Amino acid sequence: MSREPRSVLALDSVIHEKGRLAIMSLLAATTELSFTEMRDTIAMTDGNLTAHIRTLQEAGYVSVTKSFRAGRPLTTFALTPAGKQAFGAYIDLLEQIVQQTKPGK
Amino acid sequence: MSREPRSVLALDSVIHEKGRLAIMSLLAATTELSFTEMRDTIAMTDGNLTAHIRTLQEAGYVSVTKSFRAGRPLTTFALTPAGKQAFGAYIDLLEQIVQQTKPGK
Repeated sequence: MSREPRSVLALDSVIHEKGRLAIMSLLAATTELSFTEMRDTIAMTDGNLTAHIRTLQEAGYVSVTKSFRAGRPLTTFALTPAGKQAFGAYIDLLEQIVQQTKPGK
Repeated sequence: MSREPRSVLALDSVIHEKGRLAIMSLLAATTELSFTEMRDTIAMTDGNLTAHIRTLQEAGYVSVTKSFRAGRPLTTFALTPAGKQAFGAYIDLLEQIVQQTKPGK
């Protein structure tokens, strides 16, 4: 009984917040995504998406690339190697918590 | 790709916060716990534990019972039927998210 709550508290807070978990899940499933694709898929406001991306960028988990495509500015996001590693560790721990807390266990 | 982030955002925010997730996990594994047992197991301050319990109580997920044992006041917490149901749904959704985001899937 005493192991679960401590492992819950060990979950990476940067990733655990729901908006950022959605962003990290999306980026883990692809190579890169543009700001517009991300915002429309998650249905998040520009301001919220910008704030969450900044937090993930400052943690070293997400890289932000600004370029031009067809003469228009394009911002794309991708997981960094550190981001991939942190997300993998987060999901592994989440899986343990799920297994420990499943009814009948 | 588009299913995961939406299911992430559907996670119950009352339960998703790490401190409350720890409390709910503990209570799901037992019938009831005293304030002291809970606080010492999770290593949380009295103030934080009180605040989280109040949020869970207001959501209808946790019941708080005050009694006396050996002449001393005793506060115990337990999951309500609604709390058990909400926690089960939360863990089921978490399990889906883990399965969808596991590397190699």
